[in-house]
Amino acid sequence: MSPNSKYVYFFGADQTEGKAEMRELLGGKGANLAEMASLGINVPPGFTITTEACNYYFKKDKTLPPSLWDEIIKNLKSLEKAMGKTFGGKKDPLLLSVRSGARVSMPGMMDTVLNLGLNEDTMKALAKKTSNNWFAHDCYRRFIAMFGNVVLGIDGEHFETILERKKEKRKVEFDTELLVDDLKGVIKDFKALVKKKVGHAFPEDPVEQLRMAIEAVFNSWNIPRAIHYRRLNHIPEDWGTAVNVQSMVFGNMGPTSATGVAFTRNPATGEKKFYGEYMINAQGEDVVAGIRTPQPIAKLKEDMPASYDELLEVYQTLENHYKDMQDIEFTIEDNRLYMLQTRAGKRTAAAAIRIAVDMVNEGLISKQEALLRVPAEQVDQIFHPMIDPKSKVKVLGKGLGASPGAATGKVVFSPDAAAELARKKERVILVRTETSPEDIHGMSVAQGILTAKGGMTSHAAVVARAMGKPCVSGLGELSVDTRKKKAWLNGTEIKELDAVTLDGADGRVMLGSVKLVQPRITGYFKQLMSWVDKVRNLSVRANADTPHDALVAREFGAQGIGLCRTEHMFFDEDRILLVRKMIVADKEKTREEALKKLLPIQRSDFTQIFKAMEGLPVTIRLLDPPLHEFLPADPKEIKALAKQMKVSPSALTKKIHSLKEANPMLGLRGCRLGLMFPEIYKMQVSAIIEAACKLVKKGTKVYPEIMIPLVGHVEELRQVRSQLDEVAQDIIKKAKVKLDYKVGTMIELPRAAITADEIAAEADFFSFGTNDLTQTTFGLSRDDSGMFLPEYIEMGVLDRDPFVSVDVSGVGEFVRIGAEKGRAANKKIHLGICGEHGGDPKSIEFFNSLKLDYVSCSPFRVPTALLAAAQAAIKDPKP
Amino acid sequence: MSPNSKYVYFFGADQTEGKAEMRELLGGKGANLAEMASLGINVPPGFTITTEACNYYFKKDKTLPPSLWDEIIKNLKSLEKAMGKTFGGKKDPLLLSVRSGARVSMPGMMDTVLNLGLNEDTMKALAKKTSNNWFAHDCYRRFIAMFGNVVLGIDGEHFETILERKKEKRKVEFDTELLVDDLKGVIKDFKALVKKKVGHAFPEDPVEQLRMAIEAVFNSWNIPRAIHYRRLNHIPEDWGTAVNVQSMVFGNMGPTSATGVAFTRNPATGEKKFYGEYMINAQGEDVVAGIRTPQPIAKLKEDMPASYDELLEVYQTLENHYKDMQDIEFTIEDNRLYMLQTRAGKRTAAAAIRIAVDMVNEGLISKQEALLRVPAEQVDQIFHPMIDPKSKVKVLGKGLGASPGAATGKVVFSPDAAAELARKKERVILVRTETSPEDIHGMSVAQGILTAKGGMTSHAAVVARAMGKPCVSGLGELSVDTRKKKAWLNGTEIKELDAVTLDGADGRVMLGSVKLVQPRITGYFKQLMSWVDKVRNLSVRANADTPHDALVAREFGAQGIGLCRTEHMFFDEDRILLVRKMIVADKEKTREEALKKLLPIQRSDFTQIFKAMEGLPVTIRLLDPPLHEFLPADPKEIKALAKQMKVSPSALTKKIHSLKEANPMLGLRGCRLGLMFPEIYKMQVSAIIEAACKLVKKGTKVYPEIMIPLVGHVEELRQVRSQLDEVAQDIIKKAKVKLDYKVGTMIELPRAAITADEIAAEADFFSFGTNDLTQTTFGLSRDDSGMFLPEYIEMGVLDRDPFVSVDVSGVGEFVRIGAEKGRAANKKIHLGICGEHGGDPKSIEFFNSLKLDYVSCSPFRVPTALLAAAQAAIKDPKP
Repeated sequence: MSPNSKYVYFFGADQTEGKAEMRELLGGKGANLAEMASLGINVPPGFTITTEACNYYFKKDKTLPPSLWDEIIKNLKSLEKAMGKTFGGKKDPLLLSVRSGARVSMPGMMDTVLNLGLNEDTMKALAKKTSNNWFAHDCYRRFIAMFGNVVLGIDGEHFETILERKKEKRKVEFDTELLVDDLKGVIKDFKALVKKKVGHAFPEDPVEQLRMAIEAVFNSWNIPRAIHYRRLNHIPEDWGTAVNVQSMVFGNMGPTSATGVAFTRNPATGEKKFYGEYMINAQGEDVVAGIRTPQPIAKLKEDMPASYDELLEVYQTLENHYKDMQDIEFTIEDNRLYMLQTRAGKRTAAAAIRIAVDMVNEGLISKQEALLRVPAEQVDQIFHPMIDPKSKVKVLGKGLGASPGAATGKVVFSPDAAAELARKKERVILVRTETSPEDIHGMSVAQGILTAKGGMTSHAAVVARAMGKPCVSGLGELSVDTRKKKAWLNGTEIKELDAVTLDGADGRVMLGSVKLVQPRITGYFKQLMSWVDKVRNLSVRANADTPHDALVAREFGAQGIGLCRTEHMFFDEDRILLVRKMIVADKEKTREEALKKLLPIQRSDFTQIFKAMEGLPVTIRLLDPPLHEFLPADPKEIKALAKQMKVSPSALTKKIHSLKEANPMLGLRGCRLGLMFPEIYKMQVSAIIEAACKLVKKGTKVYPEIMIPLVGHVEELRQVRSQLDEVAQDIIKKAKVKLDYKVGTMIELPRAAITADEIAAEADFFSFGTNDLTQTTFGLSRDDSGMFLPEYIEMGVLDRDPFVSVDVSGVGEFVRIGAEKGRAANKKIHLGICGEHGGDPKSIEFFNSLKLDYVSCSPFRVPTALLAAAQAAIKDPKP
Repeated sequence: MSPNSKYVYFFGADQTEGKAEMRELLGGKGANLAEMASLGINVPPGFTITTEACNYYFKKDKTLPPSLWDEIIKNLKSLEKAMGKTFGGKKDPLLLSVRSGARVSMPGMMDTVLNLGLNEDTMKALAKKTSNNWFAHDCYRRFIAMFGNVVLGIDGEHFETILERKKEKRKVEFDTELLVDDLKGVIKDFKALVKKKVGHAFPEDPVEQLRMAIEAVFNSWNIPRAIHYRRLNHIPEDWGTAVNVQSMVFGNMGPTSATGVAFTRNPATGEKKFYGEYMINAQGEDVVAGIRTPQPIAKLKEDMPASYDELLEVYQTLENHYKDMQDIEFTIEDNRLYMLQTRAGKRTAAAAIRIAVDMVNEGLISKQEALLRVPAEQVDQIFHPMIDPKSKVKVLGKGLGASPGAATGKVVFSPDAAAELARKKERVILVRTETSPEDIHGMSVAQGILTAKGGMTSHAAVVARAMGKPCVSGLGELSVDTRKKKAWLNGTEIKELDAVTLDGADGRVMLGSVKLVQPRITGYFKQLMSWVDKVRNLSVRANADTPHDALVAREFGAQGIGLCRTEHMFFDEDRILLVRKMIVADKEKTREEALKKLLPIQRSDFTQIFKAMEGLPVTIRLLDPPLHEFLPADPKEIKALAKQMKVSPSALTKKIHSLKEANPMLGLRGCRLGLMFPEIYKMQVSAIIEAACKLVKKGTKVYPEIMIPLVGHVEELRQVRSQLDEVAQDIIKKAKVKLDYKVGTMIELPRAAITADEIAAEADFFSFGTNDLTQTTFGLSRDDSGMFLPEYIEMGVLDRDPFVSVDVSGVGEFVRIGAEKGRAANKKIHLGICGEHGGDPKSIEFFNSLKLDYVSCSPFRVPTALLAAAQAAIKDPKP
């Protein structure tokens, strides 16, 4: 930051210093206000204090830059001139809003002060100027409460209580029913409260108010909920927030005034239709906070036709200019339209897809731009479950379908309860009167969100859509008692842990767990995906263990199976007994008998999977988990098994006990099983090759790839491979067919990565098992990490969960080294990923940069991975 | 191998083609026979077939090189000429011995055939020539049995049975009491046995015998016990063995003949005194096999004074020539001395040290040569326990003190039983009539070995000395019944699992477990160690957790403590309850109360350790293991603890259960504990710094180094360190002293190694924890690896146990990367090792090559590490 920095940028009809591109310096809101002003759109003039000033403030122990105040006063003068009003003036006082504005939108996270500049004198002047004494007093009491809360740190509830008591005393329901004298009493009580709480009088000097408010906005950058939001969204601490100081306009000046928010297209579906809500005679915060349920925007055409037409024109201008769907805030003050904000609107994945495709068709954006417009990590939302149309459901009520998708789970009434149950892997539905930023941690773990208050743009709705979670909002008939942990809906009592189902598409709330089904894919999606294949470098395969999963994956665009886990097949009811017999067999003969019976079953598994994937490669991993995972632990089950197996329970218990390990993750598993019990792998390879040979004979194209897990030393692979090749060649020879099969290995141990050159000499392919590689690289058991990983992220020790998004500098480095060494030693080697990270867009970007051949992920993540691969290729166009 | 290779090298008085330096080609035995011949020492002439011929044989599917046979015949002619005898001749037949000879000595591992060339005709000629019909028949029957066993693969027991039956029939005890006619009968029966077993007659053609014997020696390179020995001793498969074909001389030609083995110095103590044994009228194998107990060499002076004097002269020549203690074999045939073999003698560590020091003082070798002469891995043998002189012992009998040191353990009578009990961590004493190479696996796990038969150079004695294990051999009063699992010694019955104690120094066998004590260090050792410090680069520290260990380590030469594990302190009886209270505390207050009580105890621990290590650095590792390790698992113990802690048993059980982990090795431990429960680390750092400050005030020099375990990400270290620095600075400030303390971290996770540059910025030192690093690099739990690691080594998947000797290409690579990145980012960083590998000479050689600053090992390994560090520096003299 240079000492000559300019810290303040003015915007208004006559003079505008900023522009949209200056988002880093002016924050999103400030940059867009400046841009709108430049476009000739009517915005209340004002000025933006830069994020650099905020960073200076925190770096210098909360001191403002020395030159800042002079700049503010200079801009304040310009603002007075533009508005023809005087700040603190006793005739026509200029009132200000002071708002935060970070580089990216952080909804509800930062604090705002409205009506700043009011004191006893300017209130009177406002009353006189607007000829509305009630309005002036109402503004003043709102200002004191907001300033008292946000700037002075007094609990808002105290102000609320004073107001409620007054209403009770006056026996009225709404604030608007209070008389001017009542408001005067409220103002007096508010001021007394402030004096009592902070030890000095409420500041009357408008300039002092402004200074305090600006510092309060800066300080709000570091309040816990803002920090929490940043952590959750990976926003760097050092971005800072800008402060927007803007002249006030009033949507609450009576019936010719209004305030509203709108989206230029439908944020839930993407339909090209103006979409929003407004309230007559209300201040902006009333709409967003969801306290009153607002009117749909179409109705504004009836209420204020001129303003409505102007709004339509503005929205067209904005969309054409920004070439993206906009989320706008506006206020109509006495029939004059002011735009308060515009920004790219948050949207569901379905909407993002439709908007992107529509905008290509409208000629607004290119196909590559369209691909970048759809957040890959959200694509699987469109495959989110929906209510099975054939289910009989008991609908308790219907609210707004605020975020699509269906969800079922146990009811909880607090975010803490949601978090606690979620930790126990329970599916929960968070039910609240309305949500606020304090609820984020509960919302993020819930399956779905249900609120009694709030519209389509309420906090709950916006956040749920961003999270891709089903949400039903504004269900007025719902009443919630958080303390009693109960809710009532149209006569039905809902207790904590009762099962309910939400349909976030149509707003229905149903009793019990309703069956959910997967939706079909839309034409918009197909069109988008058709562009994907032209740009991406990475292939995308699926992790699929059954013929059904294989078919689903193929329909979603999978180009093969990257991981078929054979152990899942072992757990099937018809074979688990054979598997168990095989494991506890003390004699080789008993083991071989059991394996002999398993062989045809496995062969049929593979036959079906090969058929489902005809023409595409299928990577089959040989048995990986420790054998004791297949055995029962419960004494009753052991007894039953002993009886079935005709052995004594105590002998069986002893055998099971002898297989127990201190650290099974690091024990007798993977290729170690293959070396200790070669007959198991031989059976599996026989099943694979026999199935393949039979299909080849029938003319089916099969490309089996046999994958050896947990190789740490080349010699393990060499020995296992030589045994298996012998088995395979034997079968192929006998079958007299030509079958091309590959043998490769997982790279999932640090030693495998660092000696990948040695291992590559024995492998046709590597598949990086980034799940296990993350475990061993970090020395971190996924099963046990729950005891501290969430806190680690909370404390900022780790940026993000390394099991979700690959840890580039550690685990990623091993993938890089493994790929580099592997290719150096074996030019033909094929490289892929089959850990969970194969479906994570951030990770895919990294894997693309390493020029791997493919990623493999769960079938429903295939479209995400395909899109992410395309986006990675567009962003990193190196050949 | 070039096609023009010369495969056969002659040696003899007149013509010798090989020399000592050709050990790789001629094997140790062949090279030294050639060398002796060149020195003018009388060796029976012969020729050596090279190891290259052996390698050719195995590479070409057991075919001899085409040119080989011509070479052999040519050399056979030379040999006939040198001896004046004819191979297969009917007048004066040349008889041959055919022996293996690998590059390094593999005692008893390879097969030998003596008296080759005998058939009915040559036997008669031999009888005539020697005028000893009995001798000729005895040679022939021995030859048939040996050839039948070694070359034709017939179990030796069958021949033994025929002989025994004949003795029973004749009612005689010794072979020598049989008459010529008896021997004729035996020979007839032997031949019938051969025909029955192999389907053809015993080969009468001497040339055919020779060809078969040579191939048998080659084949014996790959018999299981040879493979096992190579694996155990890390001898590469592709070294191959040479074959020595040598003219026979006979120690069994009557009372003027003898055979013996000797060491030029005492192999147990190193004393410069001729040391060995001989038998009159015996063949060489009789001495080594330990079947009869031989005479001490000094007695030869009386029996055959001329030969004795000649032998003394030869031994002096050999020592002066080889400049090392020699292990020689000789035969006296009719008063003429022949040397059959010389090689560097195996010796105990104590002997190695004394011989090396003496030879420096005698001017034979340099100090650096002396340092290389003592196998570092054996140095700790000299600290092996001895019988506490104050103990009352019940001596059952006294045999030969064949390998020094005392051992106590449970009696087993078979190597398999030894291996099985050892797996259960039992200490065992292997008791055998005599040992053979088949017993190696039992010997290697036993604490000590006791045999009824065999002298100081018997198989048991030689192998035990090489292994550094106590051994009592030749205890004639001992009789062993392996089937009944019982032994009798001077009237006492010894059953399997009875406890006995051996003193391998004086040969005593005692009943029960006698208390053992540590010996003091000798002057020879001190002299050797005084040379060590001048050449080594690595410092050596000790892993010591108690003041006592610290003092022992210091006495052994430790230059500080590299690892003081604080958790061991937690297990002490007087504090485990406090630790448990601290762990199960649900409230922070309860935890802090317990910690408050632990603080003064820990402070006193550290005070004493600092005092013991005054002036030297002490690295203290903060709490590392998962907390549940401190809690009881047994319901009874839980109940007792609950009572002590005044909580309900069920609540305590639940708490304990909640701390259980699926993979504790990868769970909540190390610095993760420090971040989740900062109060624990704060208490420990307070104790360390308070103790240090108090001592500094008194003028004691203390250098505390605080070590944070299990760091995987720099941010972990940064956060823990900043908390701890605050605590430390506070205490130092209050104490008003100057205290230099360091904070560093273990590098024991692959991620730590690969991001060592980041971590180095926050660390004053790294200590590579190669134990855990091996676990995570291989994905291999040390606790569980017993299920397959032994088989892995057996199968050749791994060369050696990576927990014993560092895996250079995997784990070592991480140490290399960690050291390199660490130094690049922080030039001042201090680097050490504190895993088990810190005491392993092979690993130390590697760490020396990385130019680490120090290794740290258990106190008793300190001398080993010091010597190994010196040897590494001598071998790798790069600056």
